[in-house]
Parts: sequence; structure tokens; C-alpha cells
Amino acid sequence: MNPDSYPSDFNESAEPVAGGGLLDRRLFLRQGLAFGSMTFIGDGLLAAELDRPPWMLKPGQPFSNYGQTSTYEKEAIRWISSNPALPGNGVSWTPLHRLAGTITPSGLHFERHHNGVPQIDPARHQLLIHGLVNNPIFLDMDKLHRYPMVSRFCFIECGGNSNTGWHEEPNLTTAGNLHGLVSCSEWTGVPLSIVLEEAKLQPTARWLIAEGADAAAMNVSIPVEKAFDDAILAIYQNGEAIRPENGYPLRLLLPGWEGVTHIKWLRRLEAADQPAMTRNETAKYTELLPDGKARQFTFIMEAKSLITHPSPGYCLQGAGLYQISGLAWSGRGKISKVEVSADGGKSWAAAELQVPVLSKSFTRFRLPWRWDGGKTVIRSRAFDETGFMQPEREKLVHERGRNGYFHYNAQVAWEVDIGGHLTHVYY
Amino acid sequence: MNPDSYPSDFNESAEPVAGGGLLDRRLFLRQGLAFGSMTFIGDGLLAAELDRPPWMLKPGQPFSNYGQTSTYEKEAIRWISSNPALPGNGVSWTPLHRLAGTITPSGLHFERHHNGVPQIDPARHQLLIHGLVNNPIFLDMDKLHRYPMVSRFCFIECGGNSNTGWHEEPNLTTAGNLHGLVSCSEWTGVPLSIVLEEAKLQPTARWLIAEGADAAAMNVSIPVEKAFDDAILAIYQNGEAIRPENGYPLRLLLPGWEGVTHIKWLRRLEAADQPAMTRNETAKYTELLPDGKARQFTFIMEAKSLITHPSPGYCLQGAGLYQISGLAWSGRGKISKVEVSADGGKSWAAAELQVPVLSKSFTRFRLPWRWDGGKTVIRSRAFDETGFMQPEREKLVHERGRNGYFHYNAQVAWEVDIGGHLTHVYY
Repeated sequence: MNPDSYPSDFNESAEPVAGGGLLDRRLFLRQGLAFGSMTFIGDGLLAAELDRPPWMLKPGQPFSNYGQTSTYEKEAIRWISSNPALPGNGVSWTPLHRLAGTITPSGLHFERHHNGVPQIDPARHQLLIHGLVNNPIFLDMDKLHRYPMVSRFCFIECGGNSNTGWHEEPNLTTAGNLHGLVSCSEWTGVPLSIVLEEAKLQPTARWLIAEGADAAAMNVSIPVEKAFDDAILAIYQNGEAIRPENGYPLRLLLPGWEGVTHIKWLRRLEAADQPAMTRNETAKYTELLPDGKARQFTFIMEAKSLITHPSPGYCLQGAGLYQISGLAWSGRGKISKVEVSADGGKSWAAAELQVPVLSKSFTRFRLPWRWDGGKTVIRSRAFDETGFMQPEREKLVHERGRNGYFHYNAQVAWEVDIGGHLTHVYY
Repeated sequence: MNPDSYPSDFNESAEPVAGGGLLDRRLFLRQGLAFGSMTFIGDGLLAAELDRPPWMLKPGQPFSNYGQTSTYEKEAIRWISSNPALPGNGVSWTPLHRLAGTITPSGLHFERHHNGVPQIDPARHQLLIHGLVNNPIFLDMDKLHRYPMVSRFCFIECGGNSNTGWHEEPNLTTAGNLHGLVSCSEWTGVPLSIVLEEAKLQPTARWLIAEGADAAAMNVSIPVEKAFDDAILAIYQNGEAIRPENGYPLRLLLPGWEGVTHIKWLRRLEAADQPAMTRNETAKYTELLPDGKARQFTFIMEAKSLITHPSPGYCLQGAGLYQISGLAWSGRGKISKVEVSADGGKSWAAAELQVPVLSKSFTRFRLPWRWDGGKTVIRSRAFDETGFMQPEREKLVHERGRNGYFHYNAQVAWEVDIGGHLTHVYY
């Protein structure tokens, strides 16, 4: 844009595209707007502002071999909820409300452990492939490193994420502590199909029993079709070796499937003709439905979204322009659309999707919003390329009943009060 | 693929597509191959291998608020080279040879500081925009957070990266220590154009003098055209607040331009009718050419690539199949093609490019290779969407002479000896 041609009164022509003050998604990219947040300053103040702050008056800190976050970012941490009697059993949440973009920093990737984080010497770690195979094999990490690798961006979501959504009353906490058992990374590793082809599965092999090298010997059953589709023996996360709490040195990555199947510290794949019916696919990660039947092997994480900014814990600074921003993802493929409502669901507008939109990965959505300063409710709903729409809470509860715990993916709503504070509400 | 239909003798039909044993780039994705790295095991050995390792016999470590790398990854660090008399002046290199994928973990993003890393309290940090503007303004971080944001993947490369390439003899070190003043992150922040439109640049404003809040008050001059094109006031790196050594709380991101222009700890943008001719755009980051003229304001980082695996420090484990993998990037846009040679440049084959291929971002390339166990030289060359080809070293030196220090982007070659060791060589 030529500096001579700045808009002067564009603000007046920014007509809402939906109720509650939602504006066209391309607005910010097209034209300048007055944010009311800017302070114009005169010459006197300018001179004062040019004074150097204290950290310009002395040399800074030296270089470091491995950088850490600022000491001023102490609130951007995982919130831990673990068993007091068994501190390695529990979860820790990604602080989604403190993050931006689509990558989750590895240090903030959510955790779900059953018996703590093993400290594995990679020189002594092995992957065994046995059972209904013609060539039982084992691979150490050196050998595995020689195999061809692929990279992909992929979210991992715990099947139990957002489970307080099943409660009668909304859980009054932050977006991260409600929905932060989901994270997204760039994963790199060896396609599982290549290794399985070497092991030569027998025709009767229909399942792989995957086992981790933690003290819980966590195990689940995986259909061979998924193993040959897009499963990866992941060695790297966000460019570097996987962090210990995410499976160092080897994790089974099953894009789009619930977190419990992404076995960490992977040490064994046993080919079998039927599932092992382990604790984590019978007593847990299954759900009693209203008709008395139970859902089992519900691997795929359906489409979901939430607004991360603004969200509970943030306070709007008076009426005026804001950008609504959030995350959407689907275990079935790409997000095709995210709609936002700023009037409690009466009207909706399509949000801008940050490119590239990638399959089974976080998609960041954003939409301009002029808040009138009144009480309202903001919500989002995601659609994926299969045509699936993230359900309303009432519909989800009706279909699945109240015995559920896993796979809660209803639309999320935040109420905005006249003071600008946000609170989790049902609708 | 149906488990009944595994290939048995595909290995025989994998014909080379170029000299030195380069194979078709789609080979690994299509069919299984024998890697010679696998160990088939009998029943007795299998039972022994199923013994549980020591870390399965006791509870693991508890949850953590912020995860760290494994203690076994002590070599995956930035290598530091700083001034003994002024430890905050120097560089640290990203260990590219230890990484995979395209994201650089923030803790390993390269550093270039002139007077150390300031520890900035974000509540006291401000951005001033003044000079030839109708509305001089300042913004604190709270105000800036209210502005609309965008995200993008983007590499940052120091103009001095790979500078030992200008030496008469090849520098015998690792790929990271040679070429690791380049890193790639997902950056999120406010488009600079939006803020500049509020400040209303005067028609005579052609440059912005950007200044950092470090003790060196690092400053450079930026043409306003770039500021209105794709410049970002970056607040987040790989999802979280930018790390202190990369500019916390605010960095000027100029996609595709040399690192020195991405002013860290950004505190001031002064609009001017000409560049300030600061130290870092006159005495440094300029180059005397053979004809006696000097190159100045050479902002754009031209296309470049290197093989990161295998690379010096790694030792091939005998003749057989390997995957060659590396990184390519261009400050002018997308990488269109990367070619690899395994016979010292006599013949070339196109590598597979990891999708998505993004503009001004790292692109990971990979190609299957059957090493015959003999001495050879492996190389890569990148092409970008403008048609530019990464130059041969001789051509680059001929055009630019030997007074250069910056913007070295010639093709990189590794010699493989009969023991499988790799060494940096010229060609």
C-alpha cells in the first residue's frame, strides 16, 4: 500500500456480518482500523519515552547452549493433576489460553502418564516386532535411525480431554485447564508400514498389541489397517528428539486417533488375530451409552474447536475492536470451516483460517469483532472435510447420555460480562 | 497394503536414477526394502529380549510444569562462539545435523547478539513509532496484544551464516557449526502495516530505523515497502512467547531477509527519508566486490540447501540403503526443487520435498540412496520459484571475490570415505 493512500474513515464502513458485532474475516488484512488502544503522543512525552530502560544500560546475559523461556512467563506452564499416592499417575494440561499459532512448544505438550516418565537410555532401547509375523525382529535406535523418515504436523488429543463437559454444571476454569489435553507438533519418524513389511505379517494378523517401556507397561490394540495407513514410529518432535514425557526415544504416532493409542516409549508390537482387551480399552476409554451398549475402540477424535482468545482469565479492555482467535482440529482430516457467534448462537460468521490448513493438525482461526460493551456469549463451531459439524452440547448429551467420560467435543461457549470478564457457560 | 501382498524381491528392481546409487524419490513410500539393518531373531533370543529393562521396574519421574530434553541428548545443543572480553558478543549455532523435520526448537534457535540478552520486563516494554509520521505513537505490550495477529512459518538466517565458505580451505566441522546460523519457527504477531497505518507515515518517509532495547541499541534501516509487505511485529515463536535470546517480548520479523534486520527486543521505529547508515549496514553486512564497489542493503537471503543426514560426525554403517535428508530454503519464496548428487556432481536426481512446501521457510528434502561402500562425494542444490539455482562454489567466488564475508550460499559437499566417515570438501 502506498503511504499516501491510508484510509481515514474506514472504521465507519466496517459493517457487521453477524450479530454481536462480528466483522468480515478479511477486514484486518485489507485496511487499517482504529483500535482505541493506541496512544498518540506529543513531543514532550516522546522525548521522555526515548529514555533508555535499565536493561539497555548494562550488558545482557551471555549465550546459552539451550534456551529457556523468560522468567516473566511463569504462568505459561502445564497445570498438573496427579494422584497424591502415585504422583506419576495423572495428567498435565497444555495452557492453550496462553499460546498462539498452531505449534505447541514441546515443553508444554500435555502429559498423560500411568506410572511416571521412564528415563530411558536410548542405547539400550529396542523395538520388538513379534507374534503373527514370519520374521520376528528387533530394532535398536541406531538401526531405526537408518530407516527412511517422513515428517508431518499432527495433533494428539487425550480421549478424556474436556471430560468435565459431561458435568451438570460448567467447570469454571481456563480454556487450557478445560481443553488442554490436546497439543500439536511436527513429528518425524519411520513409517510403520516399512518396518511391518520387513517383519512380514501373517494373513491372520489383524491387530497389533503395542506396549510401552514405562513401569505401567501401557498397552493397547491397534488394527493393522491403521498401522499400514499413516502410523509413524516417531523419533523427533518439533525438530529435536522427543521429550522424555512424550515418549523418548520412540513413540507410536497414529494421526487423528485418541492419545491413549499413541503408545509412548514404544518397545513392542505383537501381531495378533484379535485385540488384547487390555485395561485401557475395556475398563477405560470405553463408554456406556443410553441404550445399555458400550462404545469401544472409538479411536478417531471428531472435529472440535474453541476460542482461546479472549477466554476465561482475560479481561476485555472496554468496548471496541478485538480479534477473536482459537483452535480447531479433526481426526478425520482437514478443517473445512470454523464459524463464530458473538450473540450466543443466534447468528454465525465464517472465521479466517490460517494457512496452511493441514490434515489432522491444529488450524488457527481468527475473526474481527467489535464488542459493544454489553453482556453476550461467544462460541465457535468447527466443520471438517467429511461434512461433520462440531455438535451442540444438548445434541451430544442426548446421543451419548451421562455415563460418558471420553470424547466430549461439544461447542464451547464463553460468557462476556459488562466488565469484560469471560466465564465458561453452557448454552 | 494387504498383508498378503508384501514384496519379496523388490530390492532387485530398485534401479538407480542417477550415479552413485541414487534411487527414485518415491521408492520408500511405494514398497518395502531390505535395510540390512534389521535383525531377525529366533524364539530363544525373543524370550530374552522380552525381559523388562530397569526403567520398567520402578515408577518413573513425576509430571513437570515445563518439560526439558532427555539427559541423553546433551550433544543436541547450540555451539557458542563469543568474544572472551565481551561474552555477550558472538553467535551460537543451531545443531542442524542433530535435528529432523523443519521446525527448529526455540531453545536451539541460533543466536547473534552484540551485547548480550536483555532481561526485559514486558510490563515496562514499549514500542515507539515516530519521525516522519503524522501520529507519533507508543504501544505497550498490553495494547499490542489487542491488535489482530497472523501466524507464519519463516526461517531467519544470519547474513554471516556459512562465512567460512569464503576460506581457501574447507572448514572441517559439522553441518550445524558450518551452516547453523539459520533456524525456522512458526512466528505469530501483528502485521506491521496495521500499526504503521495508524501512525500515518508522511509521503517523504521511505525508511524505518528499527532499534532494539539491548545494551548495544542495535539498529538498522528498513525500506518502508518491506514494512508494508509482510513484516510482522512478532510476539510468539513456536506457539509460546518468544524466548529472551530471540527478542522477548517483541521482535521485528522480515520474512526472507537477513537476520540482522529482524531487530530483537524492538523498541523503536523511526520513519525517515533516508537510511541511517548505522554500523551494521556500513562497516558490517556489506561486502567489497572484485570491481572495487561494495554491496550494501543486500537484504534477501538467496536459495540454499545442505545435506544434514548423513553429514560430518555421522558414520555410515556399511554399504547398503540409506536415506539422504537435508534442508533447503529461499528468501524469495518457495523452494521449487532440490537435486542431489552422489557422484560428486556428475549426475543429479530430484529429491522428495516434504509437504507443505512453504514460502520463506525450511523445506525438508529426502532421497533414497544405495551406497556401494566406495569413496564418493554427496551434494545438494536448491532451486526456488523464481528459477534461481543455488550456485556452485567456483561461480560464487568468481562473481563476489574473496573480500566477502556475508551471503555465502554455494552448494555444500560432503566426502564419504570407505570407512563411511563424512568430511566437508570443496569440489
